[in-house]
Amino acid sequence: MLYVERVKKRNAAAVERAASDAGRRRVLIENVWPCVDAGRYPIKRVLNQHVAVQADIYADGHDVLDGRVLYRREGEASWRIAALEREVNDRWLGVFQVTDLGRWEYTLEAWVDPFATWREQLQRKAEAGQDVAIELLVGASLVRAAAGRAEGELASELEAAATALERNGPEVDRVAAALDPVLSRGMDQVPDLSRKTRFERELCILVEPVLAQFSAWYEFFPRSTGKPGQHGTLRDAARFLPYVAELGFDIAYLPPVHPIGRTHRKGADNSLEVEPGDPGSPWAIGAAEGGHKAVHPELGTVEDFRYFVAQAERLGLKVALDIAFQASPDHPYVAEHPEWFRKRPDGTIQYAENPPKKYQDIYPFDFECEAWESLWQELLSIFLFWVAQGVRVFRVDNPHTKPLRFWEWCLAEVRRQHPDVIFLAEAFARPKLMYGLAKVGFSQSYTYFTWRDAGWELQSYMAELTQPPVTEFFRPSFWPATPDILPEHLQTGGRPAFVVRAVLAATLSSNFGIYGPAFELMENQSRPGSGEYANSEKYEIRHWDLERADSLRWLIAHLNRIRRRHPCFHANDRLVFHPTDNEHLLCFSKRTADGSDIVIVVVNLDFFNAQFGWVTLDLGELGLDPKREFQVHDLLRDVRFQWRGAKNYVRLDPKELPAHVFHVRRHVRGEHAFEYFA
Amino acid sequence: MLYVERVKKRNAAAVERAASDAGRRRVLIENVWPCVDAGRYPIKRVLNQHVAVQADIYADGHDVLDGRVLYRREGEASWRIAALEREVNDRWLGVFQVTDLGRWEYTLEAWVDPFATWREQLQRKAEAGQDVAIELLVGASLVRAAAGRAEGELASELEAAATALERNGPEVDRVAAALDPVLSRGMDQVPDLSRKTRFERELCILVEPVLAQFSAWYEFFPRSTGKPGQHGTLRDAARFLPYVAELGFDIAYLPPVHPIGRTHRKGADNSLEVEPGDPGSPWAIGAAEGGHKAVHPELGTVEDFRYFVAQAERLGLKVALDIAFQASPDHPYVAEHPEWFRKRPDGTIQYAENPPKKYQDIYPFDFECEAWESLWQELLSIFLFWVAQGVRVFRVDNPHTKPLRFWEWCLAEVRRQHPDVIFLAEAFARPKLMYGLAKVGFSQSYTYFTWRDAGWELQSYMAELTQPPVTEFFRPSFWPATPDILPEHLQTGGRPAFVVRAVLAATLSSNFGIYGPAFELMENQSRPGSGEYANSEKYEIRHWDLERADSLRWLIAHLNRIRRRHPCFHANDRLVFHPTDNEHLLCFSKRTADGSDIVIVVVNLDFFNAQFGWVTLDLGELGLDPKREFQVHDLLRDVRFQWRGAKNYVRLDPKELPAHVFHVRRHVRGEHAFEYFA
Repeated sequence: MLYVERVKKRNAAAVERAASDAGRRRVLIENVWPCVDAGRYPIKRVLNQHVAVQADIYADGHDVLDGRVLYRREGEASWRIAALEREVNDRWLGVFQVTDLGRWEYTLEAWVDPFATWREQLQRKAEAGQDVAIELLVGASLVRAAAGRAEGELASELEAAATALERNGPEVDRVAAALDPVLSRGMDQVPDLSRKTRFERELCILVEPVLAQFSAWYEFFPRSTGKPGQHGTLRDAARFLPYVAELGFDIAYLPPVHPIGRTHRKGADNSLEVEPGDPGSPWAIGAAEGGHKAVHPELGTVEDFRYFVAQAERLGLKVALDIAFQASPDHPYVAEHPEWFRKRPDGTIQYAENPPKKYQDIYPFDFECEAWESLWQELLSIFLFWVAQGVRVFRVDNPHTKPLRFWEWCLAEVRRQHPDVIFLAEAFARPKLMYGLAKVGFSQSYTYFTWRDAGWELQSYMAELTQPPVTEFFRPSFWPATPDILPEHLQTGGRPAFVVRAVLAATLSSNFGIYGPAFELMENQSRPGSGEYANSEKYEIRHWDLERADSLRWLIAHLNRIRRRHPCFHANDRLVFHPTDNEHLLCFSKRTADGSDIVIVVVNLDFFNAQFGWVTLDLGELGLDPKREFQVHDLLRDVRFQWRGAKNYVRLDPKELPAHVFHVRRHVRGEHAFEYFA
Repeated sequence: MLYVERVKKRNAAAVERAASDAGRRRVLIENVWPCVDAGRYPIKRVLNQHVAVQADIYADGHDVLDGRVLYRREGEASWRIAALEREVNDRWLGVFQVTDLGRWEYTLEAWVDPFATWREQLQRKAEAGQDVAIELLVGASLVRAAAGRAEGELASELEAAATALERNGPEVDRVAAALDPVLSRGMDQVPDLSRKTRFERELCILVEPVLAQFSAWYEFFPRSTGKPGQHGTLRDAARFLPYVAELGFDIAYLPPVHPIGRTHRKGADNSLEVEPGDPGSPWAIGAAEGGHKAVHPELGTVEDFRYFVAQAERLGLKVALDIAFQASPDHPYVAEHPEWFRKRPDGTIQYAENPPKKYQDIYPFDFECEAWESLWQELLSIFLFWVAQGVRVFRVDNPHTKPLRFWEWCLAEVRRQHPDVIFLAEAFARPKLMYGLAKVGFSQSYTYFTWRDAGWELQSYMAELTQPPVTEFFRPSFWPATPDILPEHLQTGGRPAFVVRAVLAATLSSNFGIYGPAFELMENQSRPGSGEYANSEKYEIRHWDLERADSLRWLIAHLNRIRRRHPCFHANDRLVFHPTDNEHLLCFSKRTADGSDIVIVVVNLDFFNAQFGWVTLDLGELGLDPKREFQVHDLLRDVRFQWRGAKNYVRLDPKELPAHVFHVRRHVRGEHAFEYFA
């Protein structure tokens, strides 16, 4: 069940193999890459991606080596095989593709190739004009042994080749036969693996849907989608979905939809004073009507939820559900499973707190309780319940306050049955803890992007997020704001701030999300002195005027269209920042591996004043000829500029549109007209 | 016997531990440093060195954690314990000392500290003026549980403290009692370890004699120490030892001393034509008189060898013996153990070759033979034989042409019985293979220093050698020349080249060696068009005039004195290169960890012309105040200069002495006189 047990089985087998006849296994395999914490955690890929495996492979002496990558879906009896090729400095590379969702594993084998070694030496001796009669006999015996390992036609061919090497013909002919590439290829098909070295660990890959790597999330409160003055229902929310689809999002994400507790319910603006009619926070989960597997009566029924999912699917949207593992004092668990909560000496249940703050409307589960195993099973069953209702995407609330080993087990169990499920970790926690959650299985993670607004902050943060090994397990999701967080720059920066933060989130990170309609309607009123919204939708029903003339919906829709059309935005590698001579101007590019798609983004981080200056492009990175003009096509404005060389002038006015998203078009056929840029 | 078996035992135990009650072990321990290849190989230390262990340690939530380092000599039943302290960003640090030679192991444990967590929260609640009556009862039960884990006086103290927390006194007094640091210290003595996390691997340390890290080697041919025209003996060589000691070396290293083969013996200058009286190469081991456990009759007897070792010891010198695992065709092994050699189809034994070159005087052992286990045992017994004759240092010839797993086993077996033995790997091979030999157990390694002569080459090579993880397993030994290698710069650079290369070898690397008396007598005649000596001592007896007026013996002796007196030269960390405005001038510094010893070296790499220019010192690295003068005392010339600030002028003339070795002295008491520099 637990990961450690699988490791135990795997290690025992690997050690067994290594011990047998160890003295004659001359090849060493080291520094295998990619891997996370020496293979303790899986690397992450999405469906049909390629895995490029590298390793140092060497042996004593100068013999020719050969090797291969072994890979398979976890549970498959036999290994699939990919070739390993030697690069420089004893580094080897092999590539394979992961063609199914779920867990895969891989390792490496390498061995001394006596025939290739012999062939190389024979060639050198023959070139030096030395007598090679004896050498040809040595080769014949190697080929004959290979014939014994071969079958059918190959066996007879090798047998014939062996005979040819040792017969009494002219030496020059026999040398030619020995060096014949056809013979080498035949020998390569039946290598002598009796003394191969197997890398001592089997490494793991978690293969997820493409959506895990490239996604646009739209969060909204279904209760705010009703008629003004009414509590919206899931049917209302279903009618809201075309708007979400029109904005170009992939995922419609709902806060918890469960019955909301009444005891210690919070009033408007998180007040301890609750007014009659205050709807309460959706994160205070559980009431007489049910808990995590029920739907809040005012939203509708589980049936309505299924209808909502079906409507989303018709529009090409996935539904993401918020899973918050905590209970209101009215949650049925409190009465039925008091053993899952921590009791205080006075017999009451310990509520959540961050002294001196108290959250008496929330009871956390006690993961250290004696009944931890039944608690784990129940929490798993919550995911499985919603999967059964059609949910394939979960946003997990505060996962950093639940044990990492629980998540490792729980997410693996969900995926074992449903490998197409993805999980977003809502952890704004310490860096190591955020990385830890990604390692134990979260597909995507919220990030500090929400607060990083200076150019140097964004550059250094992106450097951290795009470095190995972080890239092997951590997929950032960039959110300009969430229902919990209205950062200061949005409070004060006005419309330009919303524009720039949307452009940054959508182009810096292949996964991003917005909390709407507050975002596109540029909601920027905060509770005084806080980083939270005034009249927060967490505690009251809001009505949003989607048709407002100043809405940023056109921009959001445009950004999502650009993201879909440009594969350079489907991943975060190959992000490069380009220097500017004005610190308010931030310039970066993204490109695909083959350079066929390149986009340069420039934003003005000063939300109040026009800024201008020169960007200095890294032309080598962009594959641009410093001597030739190229065209940059601003996809936001649909205007084109002719640029040339590294230094180019930019002016961005927050009163107009403080961002460029330039598609780079190079000359491909001629240089006499625009239509020849591509 | 084999490493893998030990690993197997260790892993099984670790996995067992982790699996029990895994769900409630909330702490994760990751990125443990130092380690080599995820613990597959030991890190290296010398006797009484400290090991600073770092790890990322974190758990879900905000609880206070605690942890400790566990360490012990391999085989000890119980762990010793060192404290772990939290640094920044969830990184923890613990330090312990390795006080015996041999293998040690270490790992980490960490756990949630409920008392410290409770104490922190109590403090915040009390400061906010909240009622803490219930909290005090929670604390009392934690303290009472700890009393149950304690014994004697501590148990009663904790019991009393628990009672004090829950009695009906004024809350303010009970809070004060709860926050009493004495109580915290008591609680820390009996932590609740029932849910501790143990790091999943036990990491290994190889603790070697200090000589493994700081050593000066002097290689010489004992047969050249006799009277002119005579074959020197080990008794002659013993009379040569005071000269070696006077030059300040630690190790007197002899090429192989075994009977030399006659079949295909090489003549002068590696000629295939042998003249009567040609002594042959000491590396063509084995004759009718014996093999690897015998002494060449012209050198003397095993008894003479022991006398030689005893004389060396009286002078404070260790004797290093050259171990070359190969046989001349006349070696007794060839007749007694033909199964250890590779037979060709014509029944002859395969000699060494590097096509088209043939080395018919050398038969390599066949490590892939069926009898590999008896071969391994016999080769081990050769080391043990010479250990029994008093040898504690071995220079191993061409280890890169024997399997790495053999070395891993063989060196470990020698050390198991004699942990004071050190091994130098003579491998000028591909980088990964050289590092591999260091990982499997060689104490020191020859390097590419011999050929690195440009300033940028030395800088980039030193950067590679002083980076982690290389520093954890690879100890470079710098040799300006060896009997096999007379680099081009020594062939053409004259006396200045010998001076500069000696200074660089002795100061860049804590381990260095020279092949004498050829080096101090500046022997620079090469076989035309080669990187080898003319009239190589490998094939003939040379007579050296040690009293020659131009001998560099004074310089060598001086360098060895400086190295001994200055602890900054006893390790290679804290080496920093400082820029110069003249590419011929190379400037670097070494310092001790506490900055109490700092030396700046400047050399002129142009062996023909005086060069001058400005060095720009990194004053921060050197701990120097940019505004105050400091004194640099040239230890080679015994002259002093007043320097100030980062930029200082240097002029070095190869016709005089093309190197400075400056001891840095800072003002410590006043600034009115020279004697106040220290």
